[in-house]
Amino acid sequence: MAEIPVSPFAPARFPALPAVAGVAAATAAAGVRYKGREDVLLTTLPRGSTVAGTFTRNTMPGAPVDWSRRHVAQGKARALVVNTGNANVFTGKAGAKAVRDTAEAAAKLLGCRPAEVFVASTGVIGEPLPAERILAVLGDLARAQAPADWQRVANAIRTTDTFAKGAGRIARIGQREVAIAGVAKGSGMIQPDMATMLAFVFTDARLPADVLRGLLRPAVDDSFNAITVDSDTSTSDTVLLFATGQVPLPRAIARAGDPLLRDFRAKLLEVCQELAQQIVRDGEGAQKFVEIRVGGAASKAAARRIGLAVANSPLVKTAIAGADANWGRVVMAVGKSGEKADRDRLSIRMGGVTIAERGYPHPDYREEQVRPHMRGREILIEVDVGIGTGSATVWTCDLTHGYISINGDYRS
Amino acid sequence: MAEIPVSPFAPARFPALPAVAGVAAATAAAGVRYKGREDVLLTTLPRGSTVAGTFTRNTMPGAPVDWSRRHVAQGKARALVVNTGNANVFTGKAGAKAVRDTAEAAAKLLGCRPAEVFVASTGVIGEPLPAERILAVLGDLARAQAPADWQRVANAIRTTDTFAKGAGRIARIGQREVAIAGVAKGSGMIQPDMATMLAFVFTDARLPADVLRGLLRPAVDDSFNAITVDSDTSTSDTVLLFATGQVPLPRAIARAGDPLLRDFRAKLLEVCQELAQQIVRDGEGAQKFVEIRVGGAASKAAARRIGLAVANSPLVKTAIAGADANWGRVVMAVGKSGEKADRDRLSIRMGGVTIAERGYPHPDYREEQVRPHMRGREILIEVDVGIGTGSATVWTCDLTHGYISINGDYRS
Repeated sequence: MAEIPVSPFAPARFPALPAVAGVAAATAAAGVRYKGREDVLLTTLPRGSTVAGTFTRNTMPGAPVDWSRRHVAQGKARALVVNTGNANVFTGKAGAKAVRDTAEAAAKLLGCRPAEVFVASTGVIGEPLPAERILAVLGDLARAQAPADWQRVANAIRTTDTFAKGAGRIARIGQREVAIAGVAKGSGMIQPDMATMLAFVFTDARLPADVLRGLLRPAVDDSFNAITVDSDTSTSDTVLLFATGQVPLPRAIARAGDPLLRDFRAKLLEVCQELAQQIVRDGEGAQKFVEIRVGGAASKAAARRIGLAVANSPLVKTAIAGADANWGRVVMAVGKSGEKADRDRLSIRMGGVTIAERGYPHPDYREEQVRPHMRGREILIEVDVGIGTGSATVWTCDLTHGYISINGDYRS
Repeated sequence: MAEIPVSPFAPARFPALPAVAGVAAATAAAGVRYKGREDVLLTTLPRGSTVAGTFTRNTMPGAPVDWSRRHVAQGKARALVVNTGNANVFTGKAGAKAVRDTAEAAAKLLGCRPAEVFVASTGVIGEPLPAERILAVLGDLARAQAPADWQRVANAIRTTDTFAKGAGRIARIGQREVAIAGVAKGSGMIQPDMATMLAFVFTDARLPADVLRGLLRPAVDDSFNAITVDSDTSTSDTVLLFATGQVPLPRAIARAGDPLLRDFRAKLLEVCQELAQQIVRDGEGAQKFVEIRVGGAASKAAARRIGLAVANSPLVKTAIAGADANWGRVVMAVGKSGEKADRDRLSIRMGGVTIAERGYPHPDYREEQVRPHMRGREILIEVDVGIGTGSATVWTCDLTHGYISINGDYRS
């Protein structure tokens, strides 16, 4: 397979992420699939750390997803092991054993229970995971634990991502400042299989697991669940939120809706959105970043489904690739979503220009008005479906020859 | 926009279709959008003709779909008017008036009610239909009515289809022979908007409208509803089945399940499947024709949804374009369908070769075994999801650079 060109959205440098008290990490080149690249990450957390997670809804999940989903329910975390090169998907009992062996080995080294060790894998499907290569480096990784170098962590979980992805914020909880830092990978292609989205977010705030769960769900809904590159859902998608508890809070917090968490909720959402948008900006073959704002829907969920129908439409995505303000395809995509929408009240704007209003092309609209916008890198499409007050924003990229080349080149 | 290359599946000649007693037609170049190409079809049917139809589920249907859907309920038909070049979609009240004017003009010429005139349009979205250009040729078309020349009819409804589509059969109903002939268009691109699927099937059997309805639904489910090119659903998709009643049957038939209709049902399905498959074979950029057979599902409907999830997956479609037997992507697509499936009983075959069985790669499988098949034009993927006895077959094409070029070229 030919080298994948670096995304035009790759940042000049990895962003500055805050240190998160208690999070240590080390990486190694274990040769899981390829020689000479870092492919195993061990992150460790202090006693008392909590965790929440969300996972792929694909009904063919990999063995690591089975493991992590099962154990996230108890809310305690001491370690995270991530490997690239092999997704450990469709690997039967041997795959489940590989995860268990890895978790048990890490637990032994760290003096915790295997259920407190979370595992994520990304890479080829249907080949046995050579767990022994991971086990062979775990001892060194445990000894090498040091405060997380986020760029190195982000790099170790890359596969064919064309840039490392990270985002961080400082949030205030009362008078306390707490750190939030996250890394992600995704939308690069794991030759010869599929893209996987992994994201790990860490904070040093002292938050119980059920509060983390309540914080993570809405943040994920408005970030990772609001992006799409090609509508395909990996069997390995995993988002984990860890809290080390190293920063005590002004008072105990028992629910995610606590007013004291207002700034934390906002900053967590910003971190998740930045990571999610970086994934789209590194979408396979992406040349344009597309924001789709849907309003006037029956509910927020309906608005998101309409947005994703537009974002996943190959005809919309190819039109954007061609700098074509083809709003007829947007009409079609809204209609194919199946969500309630009023054809005779539908409005569409691109780049801030009203193109169609109340079910009819706007009389003043001329294509020249949006042409400069459509030729740019950042495309904005706004749709009002004229039914209610539900709104949502989703992000995607265009569908280009690059996508076909990356995914359709003959596997030699 | 550059010339679209002719599909590699284009047949050497238009197929031989039987005459259907009572069906007359004429075509004209009305200049609806382009000069010098036939773009209006008037088909007329004798008194007593019946009709059944199915239409797009897109919630933004065009005005012709509104009209035809409303009037198909009464089951009587005397004419069909089809234009290309303008889909009359998202055209507000003016669009509805254009359809009504057309139907009323045709009705006046033919001495029937406007509700017996069916209308279908395909082409650009969001531009007013110049109905006066259609009205201007209707008189000539009415006078020129002659037994349908199917190739000419099929050509008149083409847009950027790279070949004309038709299929026909003779069916036996008791000792009687009746003709079935159908034409279709689709999956060619209407610059600058979207592909639309139109199909019109005619028979001379004397069948009441409610029997036609009962015959059409299952035939459409296993043909037009079992194909996909790119998952996008046009706002204009229309399938109409007309019966002229010129061939009396051995006895009156009151229901579609009548044993006397066994051969007719089979032949109607064959005609619909041939037309549907021709649409896929002319799919934008198609280089390979793909049949996906799903078995072991909870129901037939579940099997079809799983098949369509595989058929619509950009990662599966690009892998096929690259002659890559990338079965991991098939696993992913089955899982993303959300339908019940047992990961640990899933089996996958390509080109008749067992690749994965009961949730694990088959130990004897070597990629070389399927390489010749994957390099061919006709690809067969079989999936058993290990849950029940539901099965279905769907058809699609690969996703190639040609698709991007056709749909993403900058509109000048």
